[in-house]
Amino acid sequence: MASALTTLKTRLADINALNAAITIMDWDQQTYMPKGGGHARAEHIGILSRMAHETFVADETLKLAETSEPEGEEDEALLRVVRRNLSLATKLPTSLVEEKSRLSAIAHEKWVEARANSDFKSFAPTLERMFEIARLEAEYLGYTESIYDALLDQYEQGATAADARRMFEAIKGPQVALVKAISEKTETDDKALYGEWDKKAQSEFTEMLVQAIGFDFSRGRQDTAPHPFCTGWSVGDIRLTTRYKSYIGSAIFGSLHEAGHGMYEQGTPSKWDLTPLAGGVSLGVHESQSRTWENIVGRSKPFWSHFLPALQAKFPALTGYNLDTFYKAINKVEPSYIRVEADELTYNLHVLVRFEIELDVLTGKLAVKDMPEAWNAKYSEYLGITPRNDAEGCLQDVHWSMGSIGYFPTYSMGNLLSYQIWGALQKDIPNTDELMASGQFGPILEWLKSKVYSQGKYYTPKELVLKVTGKPMDATDYLAGLGKKYTEIYGM
Amino acid sequence: MASALTTLKTRLADINALNAAITIMDWDQQTYMPKGGGHARAEHIGILSRMAHETFVADETLKLAETSEPEGEEDEALLRVVRRNLSLATKLPTSLVEEKSRLSAIAHEKWVEARANSDFKSFAPTLERMFEIARLEAEYLGYTESIYDALLDQYEQGATAADARRMFEAIKGPQVALVKAISEKTETDDKALYGEWDKKAQSEFTEMLVQAIGFDFSRGRQDTAPHPFCTGWSVGDIRLTTRYKSYIGSAIFGSLHEAGHGMYEQGTPSKWDLTPLAGGVSLGVHESQSRTWENIVGRSKPFWSHFLPALQAKFPALTGYNLDTFYKAINKVEPSYIRVEADELTYNLHVLVRFEIELDVLTGKLAVKDMPEAWNAKYSEYLGITPRNDAEGCLQDVHWSMGSIGYFPTYSMGNLLSYQIWGALQKDIPNTDELMASGQFGPILEWLKSKVYSQGKYYTPKELVLKVTGKPMDATDYLAGLGKKYTEIYGM
Repeated sequence: MASALTTLKTRLADINALNAAITIMDWDQQTYMPKGGGHARAEHIGILSRMAHETFVADETLKLAETSEPEGEEDEALLRVVRRNLSLATKLPTSLVEEKSRLSAIAHEKWVEARANSDFKSFAPTLERMFEIARLEAEYLGYTESIYDALLDQYEQGATAADARRMFEAIKGPQVALVKAISEKTETDDKALYGEWDKKAQSEFTEMLVQAIGFDFSRGRQDTAPHPFCTGWSVGDIRLTTRYKSYIGSAIFGSLHEAGHGMYEQGTPSKWDLTPLAGGVSLGVHESQSRTWENIVGRSKPFWSHFLPALQAKFPALTGYNLDTFYKAINKVEPSYIRVEADELTYNLHVLVRFEIELDVLTGKLAVKDMPEAWNAKYSEYLGITPRNDAEGCLQDVHWSMGSIGYFPTYSMGNLLSYQIWGALQKDIPNTDELMASGQFGPILEWLKSKVYSQGKYYTPKELVLKVTGKPMDATDYLAGLGKKYTEIYGM
Repeated sequence: MASALTTLKTRLADINALNAAITIMDWDQQTYMPKGGGHARAEHIGILSRMAHETFVADETLKLAETSEPEGEEDEALLRVVRRNLSLATKLPTSLVEEKSRLSAIAHEKWVEARANSDFKSFAPTLERMFEIARLEAEYLGYTESIYDALLDQYEQGATAADARRMFEAIKGPQVALVKAISEKTETDDKALYGEWDKKAQSEFTEMLVQAIGFDFSRGRQDTAPHPFCTGWSVGDIRLTTRYKSYIGSAIFGSLHEAGHGMYEQGTPSKWDLTPLAGGVSLGVHESQSRTWENIVGRSKPFWSHFLPALQAKFPALTGYNLDTFYKAINKVEPSYIRVEADELTYNLHVLVRFEIELDVLTGKLAVKDMPEAWNAKYSEYLGITPRNDAEGCLQDVHWSMGSIGYFPTYSMGNLLSYQIWGALQKDIPNTDELMASGQFGPILEWLKSKVYSQGKYYTPKELVLKVTGKPMDATDYLAGLGKKYTEIYGM
């Protein structure tokens, strides 16, 4: 008779196949699906999601997970991941999961409409119920210090509100000061980055770029989608998307960002493919890698000293730039209303606003109806600008309408971790500038692969960060890195 | 408590979702999947196929199908289809299904290698076992007259070897004579149809064509694949593929052929979407529609009197043709070795060879080892040419390696039915030539949709043919149509 562990693994393979089906259906929906396919797609994804969930939380799975005896350290890690996921999935009562699922569908519609009309009031009651559900979720999941901990832990295992608060405390002062100092400088000219760009040329150039940094096209591809994303269902099949807009950086940095996610996924050891140990360990660590390749590599001067000639050959409208002016243009700092369009320096301030507001609403310090005023006051304080309406204010993000409350800090964690891991990398590879300037990304990718990507979910996020960088996440490298970069660019 | 019928329908919806997942994975594999995705794709499709099969043949499904009480005529049709499929799926012992599945994987590899080396002997033992399995399948499925009936019925419900024999008896003489008469005429010049053609131009032209005849791109799309096919998972999401080769007709007639399949699928009433009543009723009837749009419409003179100027504008290398010479070129008749490259007139002779050989092997008249000689003798007799080796002889088709034995006659049935249904259409719409010459395909499509496509699987194939054309399938319209067309083209 098969051991409990063997039977459990077969069950997990079934769930993996169902999830792969859902993921490829989702990829197709965002890339190639004709309009008329939407109804059936929703039906099919709904049914397969139910099957995957029911198979996972079934009594039999629980029993197998409890009674399985690990046959080595990898099995131990596997059982740890499975037991944690089971615990998250089974602590919530089905009625709450179902209400959230139903409310999300309604809330998304209402949010789209409210944002279009910049009408927060029409969305407020739905959002209030969504926060109420988040509170209930947190109570069912359990926490010791802050109600926020239970929610954040779902996205970033072990991370707490205290971690997030410490992080923001450390970066708020220096970042606000840096942004303020830059805003007093003369304006950066990035007008030439906007224009009408041939789509095929953008596709070819970005594919060349991501292949050059190490994304493996024999195990992946790049397509276009309205909102860029990276997805996949095997170490052998990772899909990137990008988009082509008037700002040429949308395609370039979008592609590099998603390729960062993609190379992380491609770095899973084959033996873990299709198992719960495959893929990125947490949202924060995942984001650290997309930001590394987008910002630390892709917005660096050595990178463009290598690629600018090829870019200008492909897009002659950019020949007016030299390396210095191009580098400055793609690193233009300017406080703006919209998070997803924010530059590297102001980005975390956008996240901070959301974190503080989530925390205040969850702990009852702020009523949902008063959110717009609180939002605008914080933008005014941290970024020096005040949204003119709720569409460019507190209605801009999709997350809360989906019930993703407690998610935002992982974006900032990704930023901090990108510099922290890069710092560790530079101890082993001090000549990253030379390597990038000569188009040699292999040693960089190999280091990240061996230290991070190949670890899959074997360690917890906190263990991995400690193991790779020798310390828990902190803001030192991040602040030092940004400070050095922007002081130099803006000659301060 | 839900009725047995309601519970059955929920179960069927689950199976439909699993099959949709498998189908989209297969589409992706043939269109966009990177090479490295193959391993995971095979795993996932294997698991999902097992789940779909197990759910379908489960005792509970059988019991529900037995005890369900239809609540109207549509339910009756639904139950008839489900009970038939259950009967086909449950009559075969699991061990035989598993052996066939395993053998198919091996046989496919062996066939690829044998064809590459033109080495029938190395494939013969595997093929022999495949025919042995087909014999066992037929015994389990049951038949009254010919062992062939049980196999053919899986693809074309109710069709028998006697039907196929009658069909071939009727067409063999006239077709062989027609081909012989044409082969004595001067050669047709179709050289200009071969060249290097821009892929984008081919893509644009073929999309324009299939849209013009009525394929709805808001509910479908066209991509490229090594072997063109049509697939889909909803009336709202039907996918065509085509290919671009040196013969420009590959793309044009490939697209029209698949669009014929696609418009049939798009014609399913929305209320039946995602149920067992959706889609084409049988392989033969399905093929009749792809052949209608490819041949009767797409290889007609009126069609090209409308589209030739646009074709020549897109591909200036074709401007040497006038309507008459172009029409003759795309209808060139020439006996050849390869079925999939055969012209409209010789095509059925290729099928006849396969049917006779299958029948003789199944009934023990012919040993598998003697197949090459039998094959070559028949090509010599029916087509006047003798294959120079087994690669262009009895090793050319993939079907037998997959265990699809008893499948080939449906291709010829499709050809006969295309003319038979077209004959019925012309009784209601006598001016099809005028309509096509002015690019008006709406009335033709609407007629086919109302009579055939919208019927889904509500009737059996034989009932449908009788209902639409007023008679069972016969060769009259087909022979008359071909005779008229080719006598005119070749001035006989």
